[in-house]
Amino acid sequence: MKKILIVSAHPDPRSLNSALTTFAADHLREAGHDVRISDLYAMKWKPTVDADDYPDHTPDHRLHVMAASEQATLGGRLTPDVAAEQEKIRWSDAVVLQFPMWWFSAPAILKGWIDRVFTSGFAYGLQVPPPYAESALTGRRALLSVTLGARETSFSDRGIHGRLTDVLHPLQHGLFCFTGMTPLEPFAVYDANELPEDRFQAARQAYARRLDTLFTADPVPFRSLTGGDYDRAMRLLPGRERPGTTGLDLHVR
Amino acid sequence: MKKILIVSAHPDPRSLNSALTTFAADHLREAGHDVRISDLYAMKWKPTVDADDYPDHTPDHRLHVMAASEQATLGGRLTPDVAAEQEKIRWSDAVVLQFPMWWFSAPAILKGWIDRVFTSGFAYGLQVPPPYAESALTGRRALLSVTLGARETSFSDRGIHGRLTDVLHPLQHGLFCFTGMTPLEPFAVYDANELPEDRFQAARQAYARRLDTLFTADPVPFRSLTGGDYDRAMRLLPGRERPGTTGLDLHVR
Repeated sequence: MKKILIVSAHPDPRSLNSALTTFAADHLREAGHDVRISDLYAMKWKPTVDADDYPDHTPDHRLHVMAASEQATLGGRLTPDVAAEQEKIRWSDAVVLQFPMWWFSAPAILKGWIDRVFTSGFAYGLQVPPPYAESALTGRRALLSVTLGARETSFSDRGIHGRLTDVLHPLQHGLFCFTGMTPLEPFAVYDANELPEDRFQAARQAYARRLDTLFTADPVPFRSLTGGDYDRAMRLLPGRERPGTTGLDLHVR
Repeated sequence: MKKILIVSAHPDPRSLNSALTTFAADHLREAGHDVRISDLYAMKWKPTVDADDYPDHTPDHRLHVMAASEQATLGGRLTPDVAAEQEKIRWSDAVVLQFPMWWFSAPAILKGWIDRVFTSGFAYGLQVPPPYAESALTGRRALLSVTLGARETSFSDRGIHGRLTDVLHPLQHGLFCFTGMTPLEPFAVYDANELPEDRFQAARQAYARRLDTLFTADPVPFRSLTGGDYDRAMRLLPGRERPGTTGLDLHVR
């Protein structure tokens, strides 16, 4: 029995995204797992980082977000909504983010969940191990489940939008790998503006297979910062890449 | 005389980001240009797309965001805050986005400005020209001005975070190029958690040089979708890339 947190970000409970969240929760529970859902719109999640997040911040001082966030985290002075989400992440063995791709990234409400919950002192910072390593949140698997209006070819190797894996790099590598989580290949439903029943059924079946291997699938083999591949300026050492590799692929073993 | 819209996203008016916004506005005005500022925190910008954005949406129907957004745009039924921002973009010859990099992308409040303002029917969609081409917002130059806590080496060609240009791909290519705008190389201030006066002065000078060439600098030479380089499935045709190019660089001429 494993513990899975699903964070879901669509304004309509009748949407495809909401349906995929419900499907995943049911499927995982039927397999004996424990599931919690953070339905950000239903929770009326506050997306913006501001001074209200830091009760000890006095308005006569400049708000330095990272410092204030670390102070509040280490002092046990986070707001209850943020503390509750951190507790869910600590509780979890896996985190699933379910969202529609809007402008090639997460909807603002989900970005705001990341901005506010992944505080310094919790997910990174001076008091926790270095990033891209055995780190604050190590041990947790991480899966992006995204819906996209575009066709799959347009996100393929030579697709004009960029490869899906490159477009999702800020989340896969910048959030998950950075904080020591174990990112899996994203699950994607393309051409999702209209999804007739047969394609919805196929999507559910494909998603079920991914959920069934949530704890056994090979993760994306990103390099570790502490594995000897990077210099002290955090650059990949010469010759470490697979021959012909450039760009973001440098950071994959 | 040109018209420049600066969109600024930091919770504290005493922050480096706010200082850079003020500096840019003063510098551009001294050069004879007309400047408007959207200070998103001061405006208490609503970041979340939801049913309240679409007055004609009836709750007995599923909210399809792209369709509702297009209907509201073409019917002149957008909310006043969104309509005002669209008017500023139409007015502008250049758009500058000023923000701190949080989790390798824009703060939620700025993502929410993008999600809500760049509606179907305004920035893309069936009623406007195809994306990545002479398109809805063509003619406008676009500059990202970002502050980063990390060192420059960590965002360099072999830096562990990925090249800055790849990390910013969803904005540079996915937002600006997609909507027909003309993206310039981003302006970045690294190691910005603490910025002593001498480095702040150097940053202002470097920014001034970028602002002085806002309308003359060579843009990032992204390919156009309609320039004959892509097939009908929106994949780059074989052999079009510069030799040895892979990943996101495929889409740069």
